[in-house]
Amino acid sequence: MNKTAILAALLTVVSASAFAQESAGTNITGKEYPKINPDRTVIFKVDAPTAESVAVNLGGRHEMTKNSDGQWEVTTPPIVPGFHYYQLIIDGVSVSDPNSKQFYGSSRWQSGIEIPEVCVDYYLDKDVPHGEVRMQRYWSELTQSWRVCNVYVPAGYDENLSERYPVLYLLHGAGEDETGWPTQGMMYNILDNLIDEGSAVPMIVVMDHGVAAIQGIDSRNMFDFTAYEKLVIEELIPMVDSKYRTLADREHRGICGLSLGGFQSFTIAMDNRDKFAWLGGFSGSGKGPGTTADLYDKSMNDDFRLIFISTGTKESPQMYATVKNFHDILVNAGVKHVFYQSAGTDHEWLTWRRSLYRLVPLLFK
Amino acid sequence: MNKTAILAALLTVVSASAFAQESAGTNITGKEYPKINPDRTVIFKVDAPTAESVAVNLGGRHEMTKNSDGQWEVTTPPIVPGFHYYQLIIDGVSVSDPNSKQFYGSSRWQSGIEIPEVCVDYYLDKDVPHGEVRMQRYWSELTQSWRVCNVYVPAGYDENLSERYPVLYLLHGAGEDETGWPTQGMMYNILDNLIDEGSAVPMIVVMDHGVAAIQGIDSRNMFDFTAYEKLVIEELIPMVDSKYRTLADREHRGICGLSLGGFQSFTIAMDNRDKFAWLGGFSGSGKGPGTTADLYDKSMNDDFRLIFISTGTKESPQMYATVKNFHDILVNAGVKHVFYQSAGTDHEWLTWRRSLYRLVPLLFK
Repeated sequence: MNKTAILAALLTVVSASAFAQESAGTNITGKEYPKINPDRTVIFKVDAPTAESVAVNLGGRHEMTKNSDGQWEVTTPPIVPGFHYYQLIIDGVSVSDPNSKQFYGSSRWQSGIEIPEVCVDYYLDKDVPHGEVRMQRYWSELTQSWRVCNVYVPAGYDENLSERYPVLYLLHGAGEDETGWPTQGMMYNILDNLIDEGSAVPMIVVMDHGVAAIQGIDSRNMFDFTAYEKLVIEELIPMVDSKYRTLADREHRGICGLSLGGFQSFTIAMDNRDKFAWLGGFSGSGKGPGTTADLYDKSMNDDFRLIFISTGTKESPQMYATVKNFHDILVNAGVKHVFYQSAGTDHEWLTWRRSLYRLVPLLFK
Repeated sequence: MNKTAILAALLTVVSASAFAQESAGTNITGKEYPKINPDRTVIFKVDAPTAESVAVNLGGRHEMTKNSDGQWEVTTPPIVPGFHYYQLIIDGVSVSDPNSKQFYGSSRWQSGIEIPEVCVDYYLDKDVPHGEVRMQRYWSELTQSWRVCNVYVPAGYDENLSERYPVLYLLHGAGEDETGWPTQGMMYNILDNLIDEGSAVPMIVVMDHGVAAIQGIDSRNMFDFTAYEKLVIEELIPMVDSKYRTLADREHRGICGLSLGGFQSFTIAMDNRDKFAWLGGFSGSGKGPGTTADLYDKSMNDDFRLIFISTGTKESPQMYATVKNFHDILVNAGVKHVFYQSAGTDHEWLTWRRSLYRLVPLLFK
């Protein structure tokens, strides 16, 4: 081939690649970059004229180079679909991308990018009746503070005034807060869509901030949930059952969380079997990461209508082993449960959206 | 930019695009093309030295041109994930691609290509205990012929000899046969994976050939299922219940099908409510495409433990309307049901794999 032929061939490929290149949905309105290609490679551009080096940290470090317009630019390898945090590294300093919206995770605000999945819409906003996420403030005697939790009520909650609903307590992970599930998790779309198609029963979902500082309770060990458990049982549940039209018994109450919230869910539910009949943990399950087999036995089959655990298949070996070991403990103890594995995803929101999507149709039936 | 800079920029794009280009899994072993790019464009190559024109018919016609090696070649636009039939058109004649395995659909054998989904493995072969698909021959007095159906038995069927299982009758569409679900549908992987993770109860799945020619019954109208219904009730179910360790009552028997098989399922189940308590139709539901509202009422809520209907959101307006209209009929009649919509898929196997994946965890619970 001569040069013209090569160029023509390349242009053919380029034009195929350029099909439906799109600005990320997580960009600040009007910002063109980052831009996602159909092969899930991502183009980042940054204005930093005096910087010596710029890189993107998104599932690994991608060095940027100055393009002919004087902007720093890089095209990453294909990125796994779903929501990912990322940061820019400018002259060695990790900073947020001014083009991106900011999300709270790992105890800090970070840039985030949503890589769309092809032919997947269960967590997208569809033309279905929408529930609401209500910011619920409540006074805690235990912590001597006003606390805030987010409460999802299903579509029709304010119309069907004689109806009462089951309640799922849905916990976040370490370094997150009550905004995780309704923001990165898109839980309202997942619930709206499943309820509308008839796969899930209408339910209330309570997303509290899973940390409580109570005088006299030592909370220095992050896996000691004594304080938060006390708050859930003595204050959160009574508050929810008094403010919302709940079905206020164990048969209509579930608890589930991601990562640290999964350990919390198992600890709280197993200590309070009179309160919860439905139990789940995503990328974190059992009473803690190093839990021992002697804590679990067949009585769980009688006490829980469903036990659901999950993990991403691409989580770190250590994270994966935590869930897999707990699965093995349950199998050996003869405890019935669902063990869902999200294909190709890490310790990240796509694993947890998928897990919620798998769990919710099984609840309260 | 000068020409060298353009070329360098293009090569960067090409090298990103070339990441993980793969021969299609549906190719005959050892055949390099068709090859799938990470952006789901597909490269086809065909040896046809004396042909005047060659095209690929895959979701539209893609004209091929002769490359410098004398082969016909084209790169398609991005193709939706999942399994798709395709044909070559050589000098106006529609033929199969000699590089591809052949699949039975639309009453003929065709080439097929599987476009992989990112981070999706529910229909893939995983390291879990495997059930078996057994070719079951049986004599039919009604048709005076030997018939064949495929029967899936779950892992452990031959070990747990005291266990009996619920049965799902799973029907194919028009122009297909009993090989559709176990081949294009990959139903054995879907069942194996769901059962292994604890989401589905172990069950037997019967995939019969949904056509029966019985003397004295007029079968010229494809939507008149009198003959096949008679065979299912009088011969197929008794055969299955005698040869397999089934739970042989309505509470443990479901029927579900795709497209024409969906219409069959509703017709057969509603005529025989003493036989089936679980009912589904994928891309075809109700007693036929032009079904009327007067046939459906709230008695279905008592008679069926689950009614599941589904469609792809990218089906033709006519196909989509058939299912949507039936959904509206059920809503208006106050009949509880699940209405699942597969995002971005057409009247095709990915819609039906997804529908089966959504249905099976809800069955026999």
